Amino acid sequence: MVSPSPTTHTRTLCADLPAATPGQPVRIQGWVHRRRELAQLTFLVVRDRTGLAQVVVRGEAADQVPPEETPVEVTGTATANEQAPGGVELTEPRITALSDDAETPPVELWRPTLNAGLPTLLDHAAVTWRHPMQRAKWELAAASLKGFRETLDATGFTEVASPKLVESATESGANVFAVDYFGRPAYLAQSPQFYKQVLVGVFERVYEVGPVFRAEPHDTVRHLAEYVSLDVELGFIEDHHEVIACLRDVVAGMVAAVREYAGPAVERLGLVLPDVLEEIPLLHFREALEIAGAPADEPDLAPAHERAIGEWAKAEHGSDFVVVEGYPTANRAFYSHPDPADPHWSRSFDLIFRGVELVSGAQRLHRYDDYVRTLEERGYPYAPYASYVEAFRRGIPPHGGFAIGLERFVGRLTESANIREVTLFPRDLHRLTP
Amino acid sequence: MVSPSPTTHTRTLCADLPAATPGQPVRIQGWVHRRRELAQLTFLVVRDRTGLAQVVVRGEAADQVPPEETPVEVTGTATANEQAPGGVELTEPRITALSDDAETPPVELWRPTLNAGLPTLLDHAAVTWRHPMQRAKWELAAASLKGFRETLDATGFTEVASPKLVESATESGANVFAVDYFGRPAYLAQSPQFYKQVLVGVFERVYEVGPVFRAEPHDTVRHLAEYVSLDVELGFIEDHHEVIACLRDVVAGMVAAVREYAGPAVERLGLVLPDVLEEIPLLHFREALEIAGAPADEPDLAPAHERAIGEWAKAEHGSDFVVVEGYPTANRAFYSHPDPADPHWSRSFDLIFRGVELVSGAQRLHRYDDYVRTLEERGYPYAPYASYVEAFRRGIPPHGGFAIGLERFVGRLTESANIREVTLFPRDLHRLTP
Repeated sequence: MVSPSPTTHTRTLCADLPAATPGQPVRIQGWVHRRRELAQLTFLVVRDRTGLAQVVVRGEAADQVPPEETPVEVTGTATANEQAPGGVELTEPRITALSDDAETPPVELWRPTLNAGLPTLLDHAAVTWRHPMQRAKWELAAASLKGFRETLDATGFTEVASPKLVESATESGANVFAVDYFGRPAYLAQSPQFYKQVLVGVFERVYEVGPVFRAEPHDTVRHLAEYVSLDVELGFIEDHHEVIACLRDVVAGMVAAVREYAGPAVERLGLVLPDVLEEIPLLHFREALEIAGAPADEPDLAPAHERAIGEWAKAEHGSDFVVVEGYPTANRAFYSHPDPADPHWSRSFDLIFRGVELVSGAQRLHRYDDYVRTLEERGYPYAPYASYVEAFRRGIPPHGGFAIGLERFVGRLTESANIREVTLFPRDLHRLTP
Repeated sequence: MVSPSPTTHTRTLCADLPAATPGQPVRIQGWVHRRRELAQLTFLVVRDRTGLAQVVVRGEAADQVPPEETPVEVTGTATANEQAPGGVELTEPRITALSDDAETPPVELWRPTLNAGLPTLLDHAAVTWRHPMQRAKWELAAASLKGFRETLDATGFTEVASPKLVESATESGANVFAVDYFGRPAYLAQSPQFYKQVLVGVFERVYEVGPVFRAEPHDTVRHLAEYVSLDVELGFIEDHHEVIACLRDVVAGMVAAVREYAGPAVERLGLVLPDVLEEIPLLHFREALEIAGAPADEPDLAPAHERAIGEWAKAEHGSDFVVVEGYPTANRAFYSHPDPADPHWSRSFDLIFRGVELVSGAQRLHRYDDYVRTLEERGYPYAPYASYVEAFRRGIPPHGGFAIGLERFVGRLTESANIREVTLFPRDLHRLTP
C-alpha cells in the first residue's frame, strides 16, 4: 500500500508509515487522536482507519494542532525513532485542519480502554465507535459477513433479497411491528422464512443477509427489536443433518474470515477465537436435558440449561459449539418437520455457542397436506397462512435452513455481557436513537 | 463438480451430466420441467439450479413420471446421444417423487420464453421466477451484489448495517412509512444517509447493502416502495470527482462480476453487457440541458432529457454511461455541497445508464455551521434534524458518496420496460403480496 516514492500528493496510511523511507516526505490524514504538550515539544497522534501515527511538533507549529477528534492532514518527513509506534514518526510537520475544531468528545477516545458505561456508549454511539477497541468489534462483524457469503457462494447458493414489508406475520401473530402501508395495515417481516422456503423452489439454495424486526416487549441483554439475520435455506436434503453440516461449514467460514480479514481487531481485543471442529458435538434434546440436570418433561432449554450444555461441550469435547437436535415438535415453529420415527420430537436444532443459543434451524415441512394438518392440530386459522401454505402445492423439495443472528455471533466472539455493545445503533423497547 | 466415479449416492448436477462417463450410473435431482409422451417412449426433462437434463423413459416407467414442477430424483445410466442437450441423457431411469404431485403451474414454465403478462408474473412470482429466463435476471442481481462488495472490500471499505427503524425522516418529511414503535411513532428509513455519513467518522469508507423504503404515491415503471440500495460513503476526499471515480470502479466491478459469475444467465438472456470506460463521459448540468435541448433555466433533468443525454453519450463516446454533475444546489438534498466557485451549482451528480438515472451522489457538507446555515436558508426547522446535524460538531472530514438502486441496475442491464420485472417480490402502491 506504500507508494514507492511518496510525494505530498499521495496519502500514506498510518499502518504503512513504518515502511516509509526515512528522510522522505509523507502525507497522512486522520483524526487528532491525542495532543500531548511537553515542555519542549508537542506530540500529536493521528488516527486513521488503519492505525496510529506519531507526529513531533516543535515551536510555533504546536499552536496549529487542533483539538482532539478534528480531522487533519499532516505532511512531514518520515523519521526513524525507536520510541515511536512502528519505529517511524513524522517530523517538521505542516498541519492542516480538514474541518472546524471538533467539540470535546463525551469520552476520552485516546485512552487505551473505553471508560464508559453502556448508556454513554449508546447515547454517543456515533463518537464512541471511533475508539479502536470499540471499532474492532464491528470489524469482526464485517469480516463475519464476508466469511458467511464466501462459504455459501462457493457451494452453489444464490443471494436473495426478500421484502421487509409483508401482509401478515408468518412466525407468529405476536411481536410484529405494524406499518401504515398507503392507508392499509402491513407488518415488518420477523424473518424471511416464507420467502427463503419459496425461493428454494427457484434456486435450490439461497441465503439472505438483512434486517429482521421483532417487537420484543422484554428488555434483555440478548434481544434487540431490529437485528441482522443471516438466513440460509437449502433444498434436496435427506434430513436436518445436512442442514447442520452446512451450518458447521458456514460458522467455520465465518471464524476463518475473522482470522483472515480482522486479524488486527482480534489482536487489539485480545480474543481467543473458537475452533470449529469438523463434527460439532451433537446432543438429542433428551440428552441435553439430562446433562443440564433438568426434568425430562421440560419443553425447552432455559438459558441456564444452555450454559450447562456449553460447559459440557467444552469439558468433554474441547468445543465452544454444541448442537442440540430433536426439540419437542409442539414447541417449535409449526413449519418444523417432525421426526418420522417419533413425531413427538422434531428435526429441528439449535447451535449453542459458548453457552448461548446462536442459531435455530430445522428441516421444514415440504408437503401441502402436512401444513394443513399441522395448522389444524395447532388450532391456527388457515386464512392468515393461506398464501404461505398454498406455495407448497407447487412442488417444493425436502428442505431446511437456519438463521444466525450477526450481533449474537459477535457478542459471543467478544464474550460481551450485552448484545448492545456489539450493535452499531441498537433498537429496543426504550431506544430509537441515535 | 463431477465425482470421478459417480455412485447412486452422489448427486450429479445437470450442468455436469455431459462430463459423466457413458454407461455409469448417475443420480440427478430437480423438477419435472417437461413431460413429453411419444408413441414409443416418454421424454422427461429435469431442471435443477444448473440447467436441464433429458431422461428417456420406456414402458411402464412412464406412468411413474409425476406432473410438471414436481420435485424428483432420477437414477439411471448416463448414455451418449447426440440429440440430447449436452450429448448425454439418462436411460433406464428409476424415478422417485420427492413431494406430492405439483399443481399445474399458472404459466407453462417449459416453454422457451415466459408467455405471461406482468400481473400474472407478479401474482405468481413464487412460480414464475422458476422459468430459466426469469431466474436469469436475478442471477444478474446476485452477481452484481458480489461485484459491488468485492470492489469496495479491495479498497479499504468496511461493510456496515444501519437501523431501518428511525425516529425522524432525514431525506424529507414526505414519502415515509410510519411504524407503531412500542406505542410511539417511528419511521422506516428512506436511506442510510445519516448513518453512513456519521460512520465515515469511524471507518472513513463504508458501504451498506440493504432495503430502503419510499412511500411513493405514484405508480410508475421505475419506482418501488421498497428496494435494495447499494450505499457508499468515503471520507478524506478533495471533491466529488473522487466520488465519481469510486462510482466508476464500482459499476465496472459490478459489470465484470456479472460477466464472471452470471455468464450462463447473460447468454440465456442474449444480453450485450455495457463497457464501462476508464473515464465515464462527464457533463456539467448546463451542458446536459443544452444537449437535451431544454431551456437553460430548467431546475432538473426530466426522463426525456436523460434519454437524450444517454443517446448523446452512446453516439459521441460509445458509452452506455454518462455522468452529469453540478445540478442546481437549490434542487438537491440540503446536505449537498455547493460548488465553492459558484454556489448556485452543487458538487452533486447523477449517473445515467442507458438513458435512465441509476445513481445519485455528491460531496456532502461536512461542517456544522454549513448545515445550520443551509437549514435556515431553506426554511427547514432545526429540531427534526438536530441529532443529524449535531454529529458534524464531532469532526467529520470532507466526504461524499452515492447510492445505486439494485433493481434499476438490473433493469437497465436487461433493458426491461418495468422495474417490477427484475424485482423478486415488488412492493408498490397497489402490491403488498406475495
